[in-house]
Amino acid sequence: MSDPVRPLSPDSVAGAAAELLTALRAAPPLAHCITNGVVMGFTANVLLALGAAPAMVDIVGEAGLFAGAASGLLVNLGTPAPEQRAAMAEAVEGACAAGTPWVLDPVAIGVLPIRTALAVELRDRRPTAVRGNASEILALAGRSAGGRGVDATDSTDAASDAARALARAHGSVVAVSGPVDLLTDGAREIRIANGDALLTKVTGGGCALGAVMAAFLGTARATEHEPLLAVAAAVLVYTLAAEDAAARAAGPGTFAAALLDALDGLRPDDVPARARIRVEEVAA
Amino acid sequence: MSDPVRPLSPDSVAGAAAELLTALRAAPPLAHCITNGVVMGFTANVLLALGAAPAMVDIVGEAGLFAGAASGLLVNLGTPAPEQRAAMAEAVEGACAAGTPWVLDPVAIGVLPIRTALAVELRDRRPTAVRGNASEILALAGRSAGGRGVDATDSTDAASDAARALARAHGSVVAVSGPVDLLTDGAREIRIANGDALLTKVTGGGCALGAVMAAFLGTARATEHEPLLAVAAAVLVYTLAAEDAAARAAGPGTFAAALLDALDGLRPDDVPARARIRVEEVAA
Amino acid sequence: MSDPVRPLSPDSVAGAAAELLTALRAAPPLAHCITNGVVMGFTANVLLALGAAPAMVDIVGEAGLFAGAASGLLVNLGTPAPEQRAAMAEAVEGACAAGTPWVLDPVAIGVLPIRTALAVELRDRRPTAVRGNASEILALAGRSAGGRGVDATDSTDAASDAARALARAHGSVVAVSGPVDLLTDGAREIRIANGDALLTKVTGGGCALGAVMAAFLGTARATEHEPLLAVAAAVLVYTLAAEDAAARAAGPGTFAAALLDALDGLRPDDVPARARIRVEEVAA
Repeated sequence: MSDPVRPLSPDSVAGAAAELLTALRAAPPLAHCITNGVVMGFTANVLLALGAAPAMVDIVGEAGLFAGAASGLLVNLGTPAPEQRAAMAEAVEGACAAGTPWVLDPVAIGVLPIRTALAVELRDRRPTAVRGNASEILALAGRSAGGRGVDATDSTDAASDAARALARAHGSVVAVSGPVDLLTDGAREIRIANGDALLTKVTGGGCALGAVMAAFLGTARATEHEPLLAVAAAVLVYTLAAEDAAARAAGPGTFAAALLDALDGLRPDDVPARARIRVEEVAA
Repeated sequence: MSDPVRPLSPDSVAGAAAELLTALRAAPPLAHCITNGVVMGFTANVLLALGAAPAMVDIVGEAGLFAGAASGLLVNLGTPAPEQRAAMAEAVEGACAAGTPWVLDPVAIGVLPIRTALAVELRDRRPTAVRGNASEILALAGRSAGGRGVDATDSTDAASDAARALARAHGSVVAVSGPVDLLTDGAREIRIANGDALLTKVTGGGCALGAVMAAFLGTARATEHEPLLAVAAAVLVYTLAAEDAAARAAGPGTFAAALLDALDGLRPDDVPARARIRVEEVAA
Repeated sequence: MSDPVRPLSPDSVAGAAAELLTALRAAPPLAHCITNGVVMGFTANVLLALGAAPAMVDIVGEAGLFAGAASGLLVNLGTPAPEQRAAMAEAVEGACAAGTPWVLDPVAIGVLPIRTALAVELRDRRPTAVRGNASEILALAGRSAGGRGVDATDSTDAASDAARALARAHGSVVAVSGPVDLLTDGAREIRIANGDALLTKVTGGGCALGAVMAAFLGTARATEHEPLLAVAAAVLVYTLAAEDAAARAAGPGTFAAALLDALDGLRPDDVPARARIRVEEVAA
């Protein structure tokens, strides 16, 4: 990323997403997840449906080793019991040493002290990507006391300055989830307007997206795409599948099952035609 | 509850349930759950489908703080690892200090020593509500050696004396789950005959109801309804949704998804017409 | 098993599976599972749909006691945090003392050091059955460095010598999962060609089968069937249900729900007609 910044267009972002989805299915990335107990099963199912290979290795003595061999790593702070916290530190160490791209999801930070301190420490290890709702991103940038849990109480646009600052300070791609997702690497800003509100009615709707990012970052590393495009591919594929699922669902229960079916069935060729993307250069 | 006991009728119970469901959706309560690893995901999905905001904060250093800010708390003893046990104690402390209503679900107590001792300790902290099957309620009242796990081996009616004694001794609303649910605050007894046997074929069918009670208790506190009505609202809404789901399901797998759809879709106005309630004053 | 080995035929294996399924539903075995956090919920739902009674008791101070009273025990090494590791040791001790049949599922051993050492220790306690993919079985027999996680990178046939050696050395029935499942007690080899590839797209597709084996082993003990027939019954019932589910599913999400429906609906009489079994005596 020390190269001059490559200009992006909606078409190049969507085209890269289609290429990355094809590449991911051809060579399934090993997605190492240390995530919360609420969404472990759903997250693994999302990765399997996408075409990736999930592995939830979250104990001390194994997590570091495994992160070094994985294609991508997710560290999600949803239920950070002491053993998991130690495993996270070990895994991030292993990922950094091996160059494994990794995603930080600072679930519900701001109000809750243990995870907030941990998120700040992990942020300073320069995650490849950070994913959160607006309240979490504001809190991670030190600009707010955070939400009241996993719900965002701030809007995506309100977090755009914080996202850019975080991206520049820590070399991360920052993704703010919301009705319109906002992604930035500090120099470019991508807005993706796909998705469906039913994603907010399924637990893990956001957390599983972090795992999808880890998988796409693994594929991007293998195929020499930049991280910002991998994160955009994750958001596009996931939110387009959500649209397909919403069309078939009778409510949040059937939606969750349909989302897995839709991820499994999404054709790379359909991504560019349906993507609703806006791209901007942002001033230094 | 030091006021003279207000007489209830099936109509007033069902009417309050409809009001509480409307109020819950208008101002989603933050339902703090410390629950077992088997049902965490399903429980969060039930709360989201209902219209509440779930948060599974189960670590020491956060649980107490969070319980003080939550609308309601569930403490479920299904897989009580040491970290969770310490977090439960902290959460109950926080809930009691802040006046947050809380629900105790003494899963599989009686035979298993660690959770049985813990349940007795927690019972003595005067939970706002206790939910269990007949065997668990008998065990919590010290009247039986309990079942062989999560299955009730005793009938609901067999537990009615124990439920009343528990309610009076600890100031709790006690709910005994079964084909007919029995609820009592020691002075009144409500029987609700809604529901479907498929609820017993889905893991978390009972555990998630405890979380629904925590959510309704939060709404009841905000709207000045008494706890017994909140617990009755939880049972009514949940079992009516189960009836809707059973009508659409081809077995226990599709039933679980349909239950979430049905909770999301249930209209408050439909509750009174479909409720199958019996109310009795009980002699002191 | 010190008796002379009874010859088996495809018909006798399938007939025993039908008998065992009938017996299981008539007297639901208590299936004690110590399993990973990713699949706990799905595993419990599979057991409930089958007709068994699941109980996930995985803490020190309860696991040993409970294993002694259970019909069958599963020990799955998917996310072996320290508390679970200690509970596993206690549970195996309790199971061995009481004669409770137990299943070892050595998830992802080979590369990961903590679980590999644990699996070797548990293997030497002579599990009634061992279930894994080819890579895991090779690793447990000390013949390979294992796969890269839960994916088999070796074929079932490549593991057949290792399976036989394990079975003979430790008195276990060994089941190697794959497109064709291979089961052996060291003297006989059964191959079952039922199933559907969608099982590999659902997390817990393999892990839940280990729990089904624990349930059938409990029923087999009560009805005096030999362990090899119980393990075969588990594979047959589970893979036939998978075929039914695949016929109704639109992808991996609806498949998972349909699998539960199909397990609930499978008729014992249908097993023999649809079973695709091959049986061989194997040379000493």
